[in-house]
Amino acid sequence: MTTRKISESAVRRLSHYLRFLDEFEATGATTVSSDDLAEKGGMTSAQVRKDLSRFGSFGKRGLGYPVDELRERLRQILGLDRRWRVCLAGAGRLGAALYQYEGFRRQGFDFVAVFDRDPAKIGRRWGDLEVEDVARLAKVVADKGIEMGVIVTPRESAQEVADRLVGAGVEAILNFAPRKLSVPAGVTLRDVNLAIEIEGLSFALTHAGEIVTAG
Amino acid sequence: MTTRKISESAVRRLSHYLRFLDEFEATGATTVSSDDLAEKGGMTSAQVRKDLSRFGSFGKRGLGYPVDELRERLRQILGLDRRWRVCLAGAGRLGAALYQYEGFRRQGFDFVAVFDRDPAKIGRRWGDLEVEDVARLAKVVADKGIEMGVIVTPRESAQEVADRLVGAGVEAILNFAPRKLSVPAGVTLRDVNLAIEIEGLSFALTHAGEIVTAG
Repeated sequence: MTTRKISESAVRRLSHYLRFLDEFEATGATTVSSDDLAEKGGMTSAQVRKDLSRFGSFGKRGLGYPVDELRERLRQILGLDRRWRVCLAGAGRLGAALYQYEGFRRQGFDFVAVFDRDPAKIGRRWGDLEVEDVARLAKVVADKGIEMGVIVTPRESAQEVADRLVGAGVEAILNFAPRKLSVPAGVTLRDVNLAIEIEGLSFALTHAGEIVTAG
Repeated sequence: MTTRKISESAVRRLSHYLRFLDEFEATGATTVSSDDLAEKGGMTSAQVRKDLSRFGSFGKRGLGYPVDELRERLRQILGLDRRWRVCLAGAGRLGAALYQYEGFRRQGFDFVAVFDRDPAKIGRRWGDLEVEDVARLAKVVADKGIEMGVIVTPRESAQEVADRLVGAGVEAILNFAPRKLSVPAGVTLRDVNLAIEIEGLSFALTHAGEIVTAG
């Protein structure tokens, strides 16, 4: 496969299209147009067509996209046609909240290990799991075939944990710690910065004349 | 002010530029170019210039942007030159994690009330606050001058809580519950879908030949 570039927001739009298709399917619709998808997301239909055409040709001109086919194809594109083995690094409150967050499991992401370095937390039961010593991370990642790591440690420990994950062969990391991490090329790092989400609200309240659209 | 449209991703890029400026400032840089900003975020410099020019003219052609001025201006644009009074609706694990998330306070967002409907949770102390009965939401919002609400209830309760917030005059809502909420025009609703964030990882692992850039 040749190397191409795609922005995080383009990938995020694909995830949104998938959710819009679920909503259309729930209403009994069997085809949707790029206009229908664009309207849900507040983007242009040209943007929708461009985003989708990147991954091959869908639908027939003038007939729109078949909902079920496009939905299945988007699930493949996003890697949602299989399950993923994920570990949580950090057994604090945010880790506990994510562990029980139903949206992950529903989309195919299974937490199969939780790590911490605090002796008071190691050994505690979390549902079917037991919190493991982060020193054992490489072994557990190998034994359980873990493919993704979610970092929910305090900011001071985040880089060390990222290094451990990378050293253990994990190639995809979701980072909730509020600091910039460095990982080698070839490892996908995605930061979830919750402050950036709430800044969308302060922007909107400050610019009452602007309409903020999804996408 | 005339009504204009701006996409969530454009607002998110402004938040990213602000963070890049913080990083440049930390290195002692006094000016940055659109190329500098673009390189950090993996977007084009044309995109950076377009995003910034939307809010007036900054910098001088060929000289780049003064870091401190652009930083201050972006803070104003994002509404970060003041503090905001925010309530949490839902005193569960995710609420607790957000309550202690340092990134909110650092950017000017103060949690001044927490609500729940569970009698076992009402009255518990959370730092300086006491969890309040959600039935009292309208009164507390008025008394405390609350401007934003963060919904972290289970999905079944989310719409009811959104209605209460809107009824109480709150015009900006950040929703973590995994369901689509409806709010009247004029109320800004932003969904944080944590599954969409992790789908960025499954996309990347599925498309190893693609480079996913920020922005």
